[in-house]
Amino acid sequence: MKPLKIVVIGGGSSYTPELVEGIILHRTTLPVKELILVDVLMGEEKVNIITDLAKRMFINAEMNVDVSYTLNRREALNGADFVLTQLRVGGLDARRKDERIPLQYGVIGQETTGPGGFAKAIRTIPVMLEICRDMENICPDAWLINFTNPSGIVTEAIHKYSKVKCIGLCNVPINMHYDAAERLGVNPKDLYCEFTGLNHLSFMTHAYYNGADRLPEILGIDVEEGIVENINKIEEMDIIANQLGFMLSPYLQYFYFEKSMIQEELENLHSAKGTRSDEVLEVEKGLFELYKNTELNIKPEALSKRGGARYSEAAISLINSIYNDSNELHVVNVINHGTIPELPQDSAVEVNCIINKQGATPIHIGSLPTTIRGLVEQVKMYETLTIKAAVTGDRTTALLALLNNPLIHDVMDAKNILNDLLDAHKDLLDNFYKDKMGRK
Amino acid sequence: MKPLKIVVIGGGSSYTPELVEGIILHRTTLPVKELILVDVLMGEEKVNIITDLAKRMFINAEMNVDVSYTLNRREALNGADFVLTQLRVGGLDARRKDERIPLQYGVIGQETTGPGGFAKAIRTIPVMLEICRDMENICPDAWLINFTNPSGIVTEAIHKYSKVKCIGLCNVPINMHYDAAERLGVNPKDLYCEFTGLNHLSFMTHAYYNGADRLPEILGIDVEEGIVENINKIEEMDIIANQLGFMLSPYLQYFYFEKSMIQEELENLHSAKGTRSDEVLEVEKGLFELYKNTELNIKPEALSKRGGARYSEAAISLINSIYNDSNELHVVNVINHGTIPELPQDSAVEVNCIINKQGATPIHIGSLPTTIRGLVEQVKMYETLTIKAAVTGDRTTALLALLNNPLIHDVMDAKNILNDLLDAHKDLLDNFYKDKMGRK
Amino acid sequence: MKPLKIVVIGGGSSYTPELVEGIILHRTTLPVKELILVDVLMGEEKVNIITDLAKRMFINAEMNVDVSYTLNRREALNGADFVLTQLRVGGLDARRKDERIPLQYGVIGQETTGPGGFAKAIRTIPVMLEICRDMENICPDAWLINFTNPSGIVTEAIHKYSKVKCIGLCNVPINMHYDAAERLGVNPKDLYCEFTGLNHLSFMTHAYYNGADRLPEILGIDVEEGIVENINKIEEMDIIANQLGFMLSPYLQYFYFEKSMIQEELENLHSAKGTRSDEVLEVEKGLFELYKNTELNIKPEALSKRGGARYSEAAISLINSIYNDSNELHVVNVINHGTIPELPQDSAVEVNCIINKQGATPIHIGSLPTTIRGLVEQVKMYETLTIKAAVTGDRTTALLALLNNPLIHDVMDAKNILNDLLDAHKDLLDNFYKDKMGRK
Amino acid sequence: MKPLKIVVIGGGSSYTPELVEGIILHRTTLPVKELILVDVLMGEEKVNIITDLAKRMFINAEMNVDVSYTLNRREALNGADFVLTQLRVGGLDARRKDERIPLQYGVIGQETTGPGGFAKAIRTIPVMLEICRDMENICPDAWLINFTNPSGIVTEAIHKYSKVKCIGLCNVPINMHYDAAERLGVNPKDLYCEFTGLNHLSFMTHAYYNGADRLPEILGIDVEEGIVENINKIEEMDIIANQLGFMLSPYLQYFYFEKSMIQEELENLHSAKGTRSDEVLEVEKGLFELYKNTELNIKPEALSKRGGARYSEAAISLINSIYNDSNELHVVNVINHGTIPELPQDSAVEVNCIINKQGATPIHIGSLPTTIRGLVEQVKMYETLTIKAAVTGDRTTALLALLNNPLIHDVMDAKNILNDLLDAHKDLLDNFYKDKMGRK
Repeated sequence: MKPLKIVVIGGGSSYTPELVEGIILHRTTLPVKELILVDVLMGEEKVNIITDLAKRMFINAEMNVDVSYTLNRREALNGADFVLTQLRVGGLDARRKDERIPLQYGVIGQETTGPGGFAKAIRTIPVMLEICRDMENICPDAWLINFTNPSGIVTEAIHKYSKVKCIGLCNVPINMHYDAAERLGVNPKDLYCEFTGLNHLSFMTHAYYNGADRLPEILGIDVEEGIVENINKIEEMDIIANQLGFMLSPYLQYFYFEKSMIQEELENLHSAKGTRSDEVLEVEKGLFELYKNTELNIKPEALSKRGGARYSEAAISLINSIYNDSNELHVVNVINHGTIPELPQDSAVEVNCIINKQGATPIHIGSLPTTIRGLVEQVKMYETLTIKAAVTGDRTTALLALLNNPLIHDVMDAKNILNDLLDAHKDLLDNFYKDKMGRK
Repeated sequence: MKPLKIVVIGGGSSYTPELVEGIILHRTTLPVKELILVDVLMGEEKVNIITDLAKRMFINAEMNVDVSYTLNRREALNGADFVLTQLRVGGLDARRKDERIPLQYGVIGQETTGPGGFAKAIRTIPVMLEICRDMENICPDAWLINFTNPSGIVTEAIHKYSKVKCIGLCNVPINMHYDAAERLGVNPKDLYCEFTGLNHLSFMTHAYYNGADRLPEILGIDVEEGIVENINKIEEMDIIANQLGFMLSPYLQYFYFEKSMIQEELENLHSAKGTRSDEVLEVEKGLFELYKNTELNIKPEALSKRGGARYSEAAISLINSIYNDSNELHVVNVINHGTIPELPQDSAVEVNCIINKQGATPIHIGSLPTTIRGLVEQVKMYETLTIKAAVTGDRTTALLALLNNPLIHDVMDAKNILNDLLDAHKDLLDNFYKDKMGRK
Repeated sequence: MKPLKIVVIGGGSSYTPELVEGIILHRTTLPVKELILVDVLMGEEKVNIITDLAKRMFINAEMNVDVSYTLNRREALNGADFVLTQLRVGGLDARRKDERIPLQYGVIGQETTGPGGFAKAIRTIPVMLEICRDMENICPDAWLINFTNPSGIVTEAIHKYSKVKCIGLCNVPINMHYDAAERLGVNPKDLYCEFTGLNHLSFMTHAYYNGADRLPEILGIDVEEGIVENINKIEEMDIIANQLGFMLSPYLQYFYFEKSMIQEELENLHSAKGTRSDEVLEVEKGLFELYKNTELNIKPEALSKRGGARYSEAAISLINSIYNDSNELHVVNVINHGTIPELPQDSAVEVNCIINKQGATPIHIGSLPTTIRGLVEQVKMYETLTIKAAVTGDRTTALLALLNNPLIHDVMDAKNILNDLLDAHKDLLDNFYKDKMGRK
Repeated sequence: MKPLKIVVIGGGSSYTPELVEGIILHRTTLPVKELILVDVLMGEEKVNIITDLAKRMFINAEMNVDVSYTLNRREALNGADFVLTQLRVGGLDARRKDERIPLQYGVIGQETTGPGGFAKAIRTIPVMLEICRDMENICPDAWLINFTNPSGIVTEAIHKYSKVKCIGLCNVPINMHYDAAERLGVNPKDLYCEFTGLNHLSFMTHAYYNGADRLPEILGIDVEEGIVENINKIEEMDIIANQLGFMLSPYLQYFYFEKSMIQEELENLHSAKGTRSDEVLEVEKGLFELYKNTELNIKPEALSKRGGARYSEAAISLINSIYNDSNELHVVNVINHGTIPELPQDSAVEVNCIINKQGATPIHIGSLPTTIRGLVEQVKMYETLTIKAAVTGDRTTALLALLNNPLIHDVMDAKNILNDLLDAHKDLLDNFYKDKMGRK
């Protein structure tokens, strides 16, 4: 077996120990020889801590993996087999603005949906396309496994503007899968869950166990826990899921319970709690304190609370299935090409795929059910326009993108929020601030 | 030429003098012999007044048309060539509830869009299907020209559940056409305007004059008046129309300026003004005072303020084009059959059609532009589910219909409003209150 | 009214007096000021004769139209409003080869279908694209009305490789329309015939008279004459038309009665009759003898036997409808854009269109019936590949084009016929004989 | 593991020892407890021989499987888990007529394509639907694995007219897969071949090895053997495969080399060789002589020449993948549902599928390439009409079906062949010979 080189861009993320654990768990089938963590100057302290932890984890596992970090991305990409992107342009500080600016206008402030997701997308897409330019030159045969949010939009942008082989990943589907299995009291491996929709807008439409679709039973179960973790509107989501007949991505609570989610967000904002980024900041601080501990040589339990549960399982088993050409089924973000006929051919969808050395081939999904088709199409139009805005820096396109977001209900809000976001992230939005000659 | 019998269901409407004027204006090509106005008991006084006015108008025009009214619909339909429906189930009182109930939850209260339009639809569809049952038996070759709102939804329901030949009509497109011509300073007859979308959700995408598309110029004109009359958000609509590149139906202000429209509605509600139905009630009172005047023998000028401007032109010239097999182009509501490929085959769309004895055949419209496709598809899914709810009386379907309406943002609002509407209109919603055996 | 300049490329054709008559008949609505006939050196004698005849015809009609001819196409195009193309690359001599070469292999030898039509297409497309290059430079606003066969393929090639505004024309649909009217004993103006399919592969699917589809009756009529003139297999075509439920283009006899048509062609070939080009040669000789007669100042009756019946009506009334923006319905060749959803978006179809200053907009046709869909799709794939072959000069593409033609049944035939055709027309097929640098 | 009962209808077929061997080879994962061979009276002798051989094979393999035969199908179906159909309505005698009748008119005479395949389809579909009626009543949860030809058409008919869970199977794709692997010199397990098209009209469009598409290399290999065995036109097929860029089903030689195939068939017919059924008759005789030998307790080598190579591998590993829910990829006949968007939603296609307890789910295939789309669509229309004809017994539909078959080129041939076939198989075509009351 050819030994592998894996490069992680945004390697200083607190999630990285998840990945390291995944590599350790797949050691018998995935011969990783080198792991390089890439980060930017302002993240050097963190990536240094992570690198040391990773070394200790591999030593503890008695594996011989070269771990190092670098601030020089192009150097790291040389000879890469897999590139994982988990970067956050502007860090938690930018996220904080994405959450707070919309809330000032009474609009959902969230990292990946609504205007916050839009801001994250237009900041992230140009950076991701730069990485792709480097990969096209330096390691054109390497696979890009993108975990950077908004994962679907980023994947679509890469497919539209680059030749890099890219699969978009999110841990929501795998968590929904495990949750369904748990509710039914069966082994997740024995359950076949079918998904349709988009990243952070996904629906489980079937859950076959032993040849029979058990989803109605799963949805009917009366539980305290809600269908997936991290849902605020637990009970309500269960009820609406039952009426739709589909298991719902937790992010759908922003669409189906927008009004009460805004109320909750506003209450938190005006309390000590703040927004989600404030919370994450605290969690991260605690995690890095743990990571610094030179006694620590395994993934700490506390990491699972960070929101990246089963990220390693999703990412490393995906890499494993590519590397070993094993035709496993994974739910990932790929280009539609007609598997959902109502969506544009060239748009990203989050669906069941066969994974092998050629990459991800969707099984045929077919038409969206009437009850969710409108929402999915509306969001896809928003995504399409967002990508166009990010690449062109055109403000009218950006406005029309926001106007197509179902969480914005008034042109005036769209305009004000757009202006504030473009202003707040001015340094990170070159495309919107260059002159007609393309100069900043 | 075969003399024609026209039946108007809801003949006591204040709009009827418009129709009478239209018949008079088309006298050379449209040989109307008999006009029967049908209404229900509670509208007898009004229909009586209208019948007398119509008689005077025809006498004044020196036309020999038999005008009468009846409360017996089936009798009236006998021998009918054209049946016009302009009824309002539950009258202005029901409309008043449709406007006020949603506003209690901070949701748009409007006659044809949002939950108000939903309530009107589920009240109206069963009544329209009863009329169709009668027509199928009594006058199966007659044309049904439907003006009853929500016109697109009603037309789709009729095509799905009846064999009656039906064309849905609305005066918005013709008014947008005249407005575009006025802005350009040209004769409306020389302008070719292309429309796409749905009833009360229509977009003018091109306006050809002398072979060139002059829409950009029309949209760019800086006017005080706004693109079409009856728009509250005049200036803002002009600006967003310009950015989209399409002329907009005035009803789109509820979608593009929802927040400020709700504010305005709430202000009016809490002022002496009340809601639109209160206004209409006043206008109607005044109109019927005028109509009673036995000196009056023409359509009074005041009628044009009622909101039905150019209704006669739209309706009677449509009938004229069918009767004379003249292949004229009209913008009407017909079944899609693929002319807009993104929408379901069996759904109603409001597009340019050739009108002749076979009815309305759409010209090929093609794909919806990215910037409006999401909204149109979302509303169409709402419409599809609304029709299903109206016919089955199923409350889950009704809830999912409302959840698909882009003017509702929370399952809790949907539930509360649905409950209140079903309760308020209990007497008019047999389908929702019958038992499992189909008994009330 | 702006006076018009019309340019006819291939003006020396024996059809031109048809056009002149058409101009005369439309004199009240179509103010033609200048008519220029363009031809090539080898056609100068003919075009001279035609020019003189045209002059006499206009004088006789007391019209003041400047008629002239030129061999300088670019000069003629200056200021043109309408350009009509009726050229034949290689003349009747090339046609003769197109008919005879396939017959050597027992394959249909015909001008516009089968391998003969293929040869005509690959000769004609590059010349038509040169004309388009000139028009783009010299008269970019002029309309190109293409009558040159294969008219559908040529129209598609122009739309794919040029910006010229082009409508493809054929006199088959108008003749089918007149034939249907005659059979029904009604005025053609009162009959509405709906067509679907491709040029020379068209089907009349409905024939509405007074609102009712009378096509079944038309097809059921037992006549000696057959459905349209110029059908060899008259009775048989009537029977199969009846079973399909559609009126058939006469060219469909080559597909539905291929075996007996080949037999007939072979018998003629080996008799004094020869192939159709031999016949045409004789007819043309006779026509030009007539045309030379300086006494002749009207279109001679004999012309109608040439195969161009109602060409003037089709062409000049089309021009008239464009010029006068009159929204008339004509059956022409336009780009599909989804009006027939099973065919590629960018392919030419022959369907009912509204004609006005913007050009030809198809009414929505919808799905092809199961019984003809396979044939139409098969031929469209042949056409698509033929255009690609003509433009690239690629021999593999040419072979695959022929292999997709339903009149060829064996790769060996395809290869042999292709080789012979490329060889026979070597001087007229630069694209196939240039080197890799694009040099001949 | 639940022990399995397998029923084989047409169990007296000479192929059955293949199946028995397959069961033996999968013994560790597929616990077969009972194998019942069903046949009709005229096949009793054969099925008796086969039953005895099967018993000896299981004993030799030291497996405890109950083997028996019966002429009572309904009894056999009781408790069945898998039903395999490999029956031949009318036996080799009917096949002989299917081959010879078309040849009288110079048309391809072949078992599954052309008019021979049509005759086999209309004989077989009603019988298969009767089996389905029994299964719906007796073993509604059992899987029907159909190997009876024309396998795609039969599968489509079952899906259209029955609720039985059915997967259509053919050994052509697996043989093409093995052939591709052999040419490349790799293990078939390491090659991922993608297919599109229909049964006996399939195309391998990609062959991935180690992540790279090696199909061009496979097609380019200059071999004596041809791409798959049993191809008469070996060299020619290689060349045309190369030009198309796809590996071709051997049955495509009838379409691409029709003329020379007819010549060859006619030569054979007029020689001692006869048609393929004559050959098969001889082979079968020899096989049953071998089977009778009570010393024989393994599958004899000679069987592989019969044409069913790798049938057991295809069938039993398919059953194995269903039973063990193992998500393996197989190329089978399933309902399209949009995986090939150009074909009707409800038609059968032969494509790569994931196989598990829910059955066969196609991976998303996408649009047919231009070079083969016409042929595939033409044949699919033929298939659609054939099924309709088989079920209704309507002669016009039958004629239109034949007219849509690309191997028939003249209505006259279609008529004559249809008449002869209906006449020859009168006793086996009740649907065509019943009166209007449905009585024979």
